[in-house]
Amino acid sequence: MENLTPQNIIVMFLSLGILLGVARVLGELAQRLRQPSVLGELFAGVLLGPTVLGNVAPDLSAFLFPPQGPNAIILNAITTLAVVLFLLVAGIEVNLSTIRRQGHVAFRVSISGILIPFLLGFAVAWLIPQAMGRHLEADPLIFALFFATALSISALPVIAKTLMDLDLYRSDLGMVIVSAAIFNDLVGWIVFAIILGLMGAASGHANHIMSTIVLTLAFAGFMLTLGRWLIHKVLPLVQAHTRWPGGVLGFALTLALLGAAFTEWIGIHAIFGAFLVGVAIGDSSHLRERTRATIDHFVSFIFAPVFFAGIGLKVNFLTHFDLPLVLTVLLIACGCKIAGGTLGARWGGMSSNEAWAVGFAMNSRGAMEIILGLLALEAGIIGNRLFVALVITAIVTSMMSGPVMRFILMRAKKRRLQDTLSSKLFLRELKAISRREAIHEITSAACISAGLDADAVEAAVWAREEALSTGIGNGVALPHARIEGLLDSLIVVGISDTGIDFDAPDDKSAHLIFLILTPGNDPGAQLEITSELSRIFREQYMLERVLRTKNFDDFFVLMKNASVEQQSA
Amino acid sequence: MENLTPQNIIVMFLSLGILLGVARVLGELAQRLRQPSVLGELFAGVLLGPTVLGNVAPDLSAFLFPPQGPNAIILNAITTLAVVLFLLVAGIEVNLSTIRRQGHVAFRVSISGILIPFLLGFAVAWLIPQAMGRHLEADPLIFALFFATALSISALPVIAKTLMDLDLYRSDLGMVIVSAAIFNDLVGWIVFAIILGLMGAASGHANHIMSTIVLTLAFAGFMLTLGRWLIHKVLPLVQAHTRWPGGVLGFALTLALLGAAFTEWIGIHAIFGAFLVGVAIGDSSHLRERTRATIDHFVSFIFAPVFFAGIGLKVNFLTHFDLPLVLTVLLIACGCKIAGGTLGARWGGMSSNEAWAVGFAMNSRGAMEIILGLLALEAGIIGNRLFVALVITAIVTSMMSGPVMRFILMRAKKRRLQDTLSSKLFLRELKAISRREAIHEITSAACISAGLDADAVEAAVWAREEALSTGIGNGVALPHARIEGLLDSLIVVGISDTGIDFDAPDDKSAHLIFLILTPGNDPGAQLEITSELSRIFREQYMLERVLRTKNFDDFFVLMKNASVEQQSA
Repeated sequence: MENLTPQNIIVMFLSLGILLGVARVLGELAQRLRQPSVLGELFAGVLLGPTVLGNVAPDLSAFLFPPQGPNAIILNAITTLAVVLFLLVAGIEVNLSTIRRQGHVAFRVSISGILIPFLLGFAVAWLIPQAMGRHLEADPLIFALFFATALSISALPVIAKTLMDLDLYRSDLGMVIVSAAIFNDLVGWIVFAIILGLMGAASGHANHIMSTIVLTLAFAGFMLTLGRWLIHKVLPLVQAHTRWPGGVLGFALTLALLGAAFTEWIGIHAIFGAFLVGVAIGDSSHLRERTRATIDHFVSFIFAPVFFAGIGLKVNFLTHFDLPLVLTVLLIACGCKIAGGTLGARWGGMSSNEAWAVGFAMNSRGAMEIILGLLALEAGIIGNRLFVALVITAIVTSMMSGPVMRFILMRAKKRRLQDTLSSKLFLRELKAISRREAIHEITSAACISAGLDADAVEAAVWAREEALSTGIGNGVALPHARIEGLLDSLIVVGISDTGIDFDAPDDKSAHLIFLILTPGNDPGAQLEITSELSRIFREQYMLERVLRTKNFDDFFVLMKNASVEQQSA
Repeated sequence: MENLTPQNIIVMFLSLGILLGVARVLGELAQRLRQPSVLGELFAGVLLGPTVLGNVAPDLSAFLFPPQGPNAIILNAITTLAVVLFLLVAGIEVNLSTIRRQGHVAFRVSISGILIPFLLGFAVAWLIPQAMGRHLEADPLIFALFFATALSISALPVIAKTLMDLDLYRSDLGMVIVSAAIFNDLVGWIVFAIILGLMGAASGHANHIMSTIVLTLAFAGFMLTLGRWLIHKVLPLVQAHTRWPGGVLGFALTLALLGAAFTEWIGIHAIFGAFLVGVAIGDSSHLRERTRATIDHFVSFIFAPVFFAGIGLKVNFLTHFDLPLVLTVLLIACGCKIAGGTLGARWGGMSSNEAWAVGFAMNSRGAMEIILGLLALEAGIIGNRLFVALVITAIVTSMMSGPVMRFILMRAKKRRLQDTLSSKLFLRELKAISRREAIHEITSAACISAGLDADAVEAAVWAREEALSTGIGNGVALPHARIEGLLDSLIVVGISDTGIDFDAPDDKSAHLIFLILTPGNDPGAQLEITSELSRIFREQYMLERVLRTKNFDDFFVLMKNASVEQQSA
């Protein structure tokens, strides 16, 4: 096997260490500024890449991140591996039953979010191609098709990361967005495969277009039906006959790598294979939360930062910067994508606030746009100026989506947590010892107090619980349901000193259970309350403090202070 | 940045997926056959490498694992990254206070385990160099020095993996072996650096020898003192100001990568930097068990299998196979290393059984020998035949150490677990709620029953507990001590329905506490009892069954059956 020189090895570890370190520091900093950490990670790449370091210290930059040779290949391979593993995690987190429930909304968001930018982008690029930075030799039709695709694509990894950072990934809203992004990206990549096929047709490699499309659809169909069923059957066997968690970890990663190889082979990007494998594995109820968390932690905090920082290394944003072109592309891209997503969400029946949040979320382009742009650049469809404009569009749209979504969702009337707490709904000593019993005990208390139909409420809460457990870790569980006819949000607090298994990611028993019932006509309330409670109980010491309280008044003061701290932080 | 072609990406994911999949399957299979899983992983590489697949299907082999070009570089980089991360984990698991306690034994094992093979190896290679496969042009002194080093080196990663697989890593015996292997390898690599320096002297690059030695010692000294202290001070800050577990994970990996770059730069292998960083981080009491477990699981079950399988890809064992040379090298290597290790352990005061186990453990050469051999091959010191003989020696010595150690340690008189249980030493309802109280309560019971000095026993148990917590996970804790003057092993069983925090790797409270007191003059007893209990309670359902027992008789029957099942498995 070809050997690496000591110089290669030094540069490899040094560059990876610096990339990871800077990305993690800036990622944490971004979170302190209430931004998604992916922003800090992208910015780390800009700092370390040709734009800043390459300008300030070109020798150091060329030493750390050489543009050619073994170290360039290594870094490229590791970032490719990183994005594939990141998509595996994003896939594992997707909940198919939620997608099924959200199906019609997601479909409408997706269709509208593709068609509007595609038609507008095609029109603009066809009518005024030079203003859009078309390469002189490029075929007008291919250029227009590419530009239309570039406008309509979303970036599933960035969207997923932004939603995870905002604690929205597993919410209903998050699932609509992710489902729409999946449809969106699948369509986008198939269209791009057709474009590459059309270009090949000119140069005589046209026979792959149809097979790419057919194989893509067949593979997606297989993984979402038979493949998913097979994995669900095989997982318990793997778990039973191997040493935990090695067997399941190895099984998941092996399938993801093979899936990645397969989709790359059929002509779409490797990430789709890993993503679909993730969806199929994550959907099995046999995958334990702890295994899921191990993969998630290692990938989200090690591989993802390296990948996102790696993006900034690819381009010099100064030498190829063309302000009018950047602004034009950015405005057209944002306008038509936000409009498409928002209109689709309204068409699907969402509230105005949520629809805008969907529009801005779908507007993230991130890595997908950059990969698409890079391929187009290499194929001679576009020039450097448009490539930089696309990258900036990708970064700006990714950067704005998190803060804007937060702003939109917060703009909704801010309910104060303590207004929903009441001494009548405070059960200091739960008798229940199982999840089922706890939910029965707590919903009964809620329904007696609020005059609701106990059986219906319990069924709704339990259905939600079965779809996806609500144990959030650190000993806290947040079972919840939207109740038609309820006028105001209602929180019942149950404390169990012995602890109840809520299948939390950290395997800890829940000692503190908040039952959250929100009005059916107020979709934002549930999101707000669960996010706030998640944030408060991210600190481990909070649970201990709660367990030390003896009565409702102590508890109330504690929660009020925590909630105020939270808002001023 | 240099781009990978779709072909490169397909081969990368396909080869990694196959390597990981086959290594995990054979690794699990090896464990089922009661062998360390590293054996299966090494064998996966032999199957997929030039020896088997390269012979049976040369086209497929050349496609999956091309010897040149981008994919060769990528695979090399990923296996190098894997071994560095594996050494990080091995370093984290090292317990410095145990090494300090075991210091003089480890030192004697190490000195004797280096000197005997080194002197013998030098003599043989100097007196009959041709019979040992010396390259014709090689300098006799350099060849003899190399051969002596090759005989005296151990393979810390393989030894660590074997000990982990045998559940011995954290035992006193394991710590003696690991400490000795660390000394051993540090000395071995410094000697090898001198050899490479001597060769450079001939060709005019001699100025690096001294600086390599000085920098190596300085870096090791720094990481084990000031660096360790700094990390201990910084870790709580990282933990407080970042999102768990991302901050600590990123911090640990960044330091490991930078440490790897540094040691590679000073002229020794990258793995030493990662290892020393791991030692420094793992020694801090601020590193939470859960973070440790996340790194450990991902590295041990994903990166380590890829690395060990990757070794087999490097060589064709058939074309360069020379039976007389292989047998000669193997016999000399085993004879002098086992003798050196065993004599050193006896010299350090170990029992005969344990000393033989140490000798066979130190005999593992694994990856180190192969890396050493590869460098020597490329430098023209040795030829292909000796290289293959060294690789086979590395594999055979690694393969035999696990089974032989198991056999030796089992040969000691097999005590039956149930003989040490007694209804007088069964505390169905512990009153204690903290670890300190629990140990007090249980040792008191033991001392009253056995007529021991309660304060002395409690102090010994608590000292052990503070050095390294004895919570083994799944709700079980195994506090223990060796007591001078005790005639027979003694187990006190304490059950706590509320649970007591024993800082277990899985963060779960301990509900079942076995206090294990063993005679001071019977070092094997402690090992045997803790291993058996660890194995029995690896199954999560065992704890539930115990908690359901109402009295000693139920408990006794349960343990007896579990113990019998275990032995017949």
